[in-house]
Order: sequence, then C-alpha cells, then structure tokens
Amino acid sequence: MNLQYTLELFGTFVFAISGALAIQDKEHDWFGAGFTGFVTAIGGGSLRDMILGSYPLVWVGDIYFLYSIIAGTVAAIVFYRYIITLRKTFFLFDTFGIAFFTVLGVEKSLSLGVRPEIAAIMGMFSAVMGGVIRDTLTNETPVIFRKEIYATACLAGAVCYLLLDLFTDITRNANLLVSAGIIIAIRLVAVKYRLSLPELK
Amino acid sequence: MNLQYTLELFGTFVFAISGALAIQDKEHDWFGAGFTGFVTAIGGGSLRDMILGSYPLVWVGDIYFLYSIIAGTVAAIVFYRYIITLRKTFFLFDTFGIAFFTVLGVEKSLSLGVRPEIAAIMGMFSAVMGGVIRDTLTNETPVIFRKEIYATACLAGAVCYLLLDLFTDITRNANLLVSAGIIIAIRLVAVKYRLSLPELK
Amino acid sequence: MNLQYTLELFGTFVFAISGALAIQDKEHDWFGAGFTGFVTAIGGGSLRDMILGSYPLVWVGDIYFLYSIIAGTVAAIVFYRYIITLRKTFFLFDTFGIAFFTVLGVEKSLSLGVRPEIAAIMGMFSAVMGGVIRDTLTNETPVIFRKEIYATACLAGAVCYLLLDLFTDITRNANLLVSAGIIIAIRLVAVKYRLSLPELK
Repeated sequence: MNLQYTLELFGTFVFAISGALAIQDKEHDWFGAGFTGFVTAIGGGSLRDMILGSYPLVWVGDIYFLYSIIAGTVAAIVFYRYIITLRKTFFLFDTFGIAFFTVLGVEKSLSLGVRPEIAAIMGMFSAVMGGVIRDTLTNETPVIFRKEIYATACLAGAVCYLLLDLFTDITRNANLLVSAGIIIAIRLVAVKYRLSLPELK
Repeated sequence: MNLQYTLELFGTFVFAISGALAIQDKEHDWFGAGFTGFVTAIGGGSLRDMILGSYPLVWVGDIYFLYSIIAGTVAAIVFYRYIITLRKTFFLFDTFGIAFFTVLGVEKSLSLGVRPEIAAIMGMFSAVMGGVIRDTLTNETPVIFRKEIYATACLAGAVCYLLLDLFTDITRNANLLVSAGIIIAIRLVAVKYRLSLPELK
Repeated sequence: MNLQYTLELFGTFVFAISGALAIQDKEHDWFGAGFTGFVTAIGGGSLRDMILGSYPLVWVGDIYFLYSIIAGTVAAIVFYRYIITLRKTFFLFDTFGIAFFTVLGVEKSLSLGVRPEIAAIMGMFSAVMGGVIRDTLTNETPVIFRKEIYATACLAGAVCYLLLDLFTDITRNANLLVSAGIIIAIRLVAVKYRLSLPELK
C-alpha cells in the first residue's frame, strides 16, 4: 500500500512534467506550463471522480498530490534543456503511468460500487482524460484521436483486469501487475510496429 | 413510461451512431469513432446531472444506456457505407432526438427542485451539450455556434413546456408532445427556409 | 454583505457582456452571444463548486445571477455599437472583476474546509476558468496561455490573501481590499509595461 501511494505520487510528478513540456512548440510561459502540467496530472482522476460523484477529489483531499505537481512543474522549468533530451525515457514513463493509473482507476471505480463495464471506462478515463483536456485547452488534436493505439490499450488492460477479477482466483497484486503489463505490452508493440486500429471508412 | 424508456434507449443509440459518424472527414479509427459516439450520447445528460449534483449519472446507474451506445458504435462501423447514405434520415432522427431529450431534461430538472428558468437551460443542455463537447474535442466549431437555428429551437420548446405546465391544465403527455413538436417544427422550418437569428454586429 | 452581493451580481452582469462580445470577430448570432456570455459569467465559479462538490451551484440556487446574465446579454446585443467603443472601460471592469472573484473564490473555498493551497488555486479558477471554457468552445487560444500576465496575477492575489489571513490580524474586509488591489496592480502594471513571465524555452 505504501509502495502504491509512492507510485501514485511519482506518477503524478511525471505526468506534471510531461504535461508542462507537452506544449513546448507553443510560446507558453511558466504559468502556462504549470497549468498544463496541473491539468494533465489531475484531469483524468478528477473527471472520473466527478462523474462518479466521489468527493473529495484525490488532490483536494491529499495535499501531497499538489506538491508533486508543483515539483514536476518546477523540474520541467529548471531542467528544461536536459529533460527534453529524455524523450524515450518519458515515453516509457508515460506508458507505465497510463498502465498504472488505468488499473488503479478500475479498482477505485469498483470500490465505489459501479458495474464492471462502467469501471473499465472509468479506468481508461483516469489514465487518458488529463491529456485529452490538456490537448483540448491548447487546441491540439487530443492524443486519443491520433493514429497510435493509446486509450485502446488502457481499455484492453481494464477489461483484462475485470475478467481476471471475476473469473479467476488471482490475487489483487498479481492482477494489477498482469493487467498493467498487458497495457504496457500493447502500447510498446503498437508503437514499435506502428500498429493502429482500422479507420472508420 | 415503458414507451419513454424505450425511446430514451433508442435516442441514445441514434446519438451514438451520429456521434461516431460526425468525424468521418477526419481519419479517426474505430476507437475514436466509439469515443465520439459515447461523448455525444451521454455528454448532455451527464453535464446536466453534474451541474445539478444528481448522482448517479443516468448511464452509470443503468447499464442499458452503455449497451445502446456500444450497439450504436458497432452499427456505425459495420454498416458505415450504408448509414452515410442516410443523411436525411439521420437529420430527422437528430431533430426528434433533441426535441425529446430537451423536454425530458426539463422534466428531470424540475423534479430535482430547480426553478423553471434553470430547468429550461438544463433541458437545452441535455439535448445539445453532448454535441458541443464532441465538437470541442475534435476542434470543430460547436454546432450551436453555426448559422442554423439549433439550440434556440430547444430553448423555445423548453420555455413552451414550462409555460404550458405552469399556466394550463394540459396533461404531462400532451405537453411533452406539443413542446417537442414545437422544437421539431422550428428546426425543420429553419433548415428548410435557411432561417437564422440576427448576427451580433 | 449587501454591498458584496450587489457587486457579485454586477460582476456577473459585466462578465456576461464581455463574454458575449468576446466573439465579435466571429459570425455568431444572438444565441451564440448569449451562450458565450453565460459560460463566461458562470463557468469559473461552477467549475470551482463542481470540483469541491459544493451544491447547489451559485447560479442554480439564486436566480438573480441568471437574470444578471440575461440583462448583460441583452445589453450587449442592444447597445452593441456603443459598448464596443468602451474597450478601455471593459478592460478595467474585467480587471476589477477577476480581482474580486478571485478573493471571494478563495474565501468560499476556505469556508468549504479545503487547505489554503487548494483555496488559492480555486480562487484563481473562479476568476479565469469561465473565460478559458469560452475560449476553448470557440477554438481560441485560452486567455491564460497568452503573453500577458492574467491568471498569474489572480494566483498572486490569492496567495497574498492567504498569507495575510494566516499570519496577520488584518480584518476580512481590509484583506479583501488589499489582496484584490494586488491583483489589479499587477495586471495594470503588466499590461502597461508589457511585462510577461519568462517563456519555457
């Protein structure tokens, strides 16, 4: 549990950095960077909790999440030149981050008493909607509409978690690991081999 | 009542189809289509309920709404070539849909104890905000800012419902029919004769 | 208290006017103007209250806010030619408005029991997020990402309010005045001397 909490704070820190840097081709100032970092880090979980009516929102109830975001933003500003050379590292961090936040989001939704189908969507929302809100505010095409498989991997991992939870005797920790692993595997394979879902037309 | 519930599920199904197809000129994949279908179908009612603090949201509390959305998305993908030839049919479905969801949204808001003026706005929100959220996410100009009369028709129908409810002895069902009819009539006449509200300047 | 309430209604009226006029270079009709006026006026406070789970939202619980918005929209339409000549006046009104709504937003958040750090963000949100939502809906670059110091001034004033509240014996009214004055001063000086925060790169 302590490990999980540490990971949540670290994930929030990383999401804030990547959110702050997501707009580097625009001429945003420090405030703009902090704002997009903040929205990226808390947007998905907040939307999930506001949809499910679960108050207080995580970052409102526990100040350490805000501190993680502030630390991430400051790091992004201070170490800007260094961090932007770490694209591959951040791609990996982001991949682990969405995997982790998806399965935790599924768990939290189930604990609030919603049906598994809803929990799967809410898990995916937890992971990707922060980026979607950020992209919408900055007039970018939201990441989920781009070619690569992204939110679909989260949804697949969420469904995997629910199936294992319902139909096997797997322990919670093993399930978290397996399902997050599925998300990571799908995402990495999709990016490496440029796989994408069929287009509508 | 049973008829109303069936119509709500059918309206959700149709909104999901039209939402999934709304992005056909973009290169969205199946996930993107499903996501826009989902947002279009549940966005308006969800925003209304989140503004009024009415939990659980309709689609969270009743899984058949999600099933309707999934069915609509699958239909949009599978029958894509056929459905896009049905533009006029979908225009009619959309017109009936916004009329129906407006008056039901007014009713639900009133039942939550808000004043009639607020209920009118919430009724209009129920019908059009799903499309507005969809358009915002896909960087389109939201439908309510385009030339044709759209949300204005919903607002007029909502006001009509409230006036008839407050000042006449009309039965609920008759009022639903009359007020939805007003919305449909305004919308059809506006499109046919290219009527629009005056511009600001 | 009575003065504060009057100022809140007047601020809502002014925000509705400036929101309605914010889209004047687009070909919006009367409905579009009213919609953007509405969103600008109630967006920030509504988002704050939905994040904090404080229901009913201000404008849902007190109909006079809606009346102020309607009055502002009608004024924007009727006196359009005259009002757009008042750019400087509206710049001043907007500056006073964001200052006032920031400190009131901080106060309300504190009264709901959140920590000061959260209250500072919520105060800033109260003032600027209505404009951000408006800009996002109309596909503009949100005001907070533009060059001038805007939201940063609100954040500074919010922090000032909290520091004075925690560490001095200042009366509430004096604190409101001083902190709002800080926001106004920062904003005016920044615009006059074209000051802006450093860019990220």
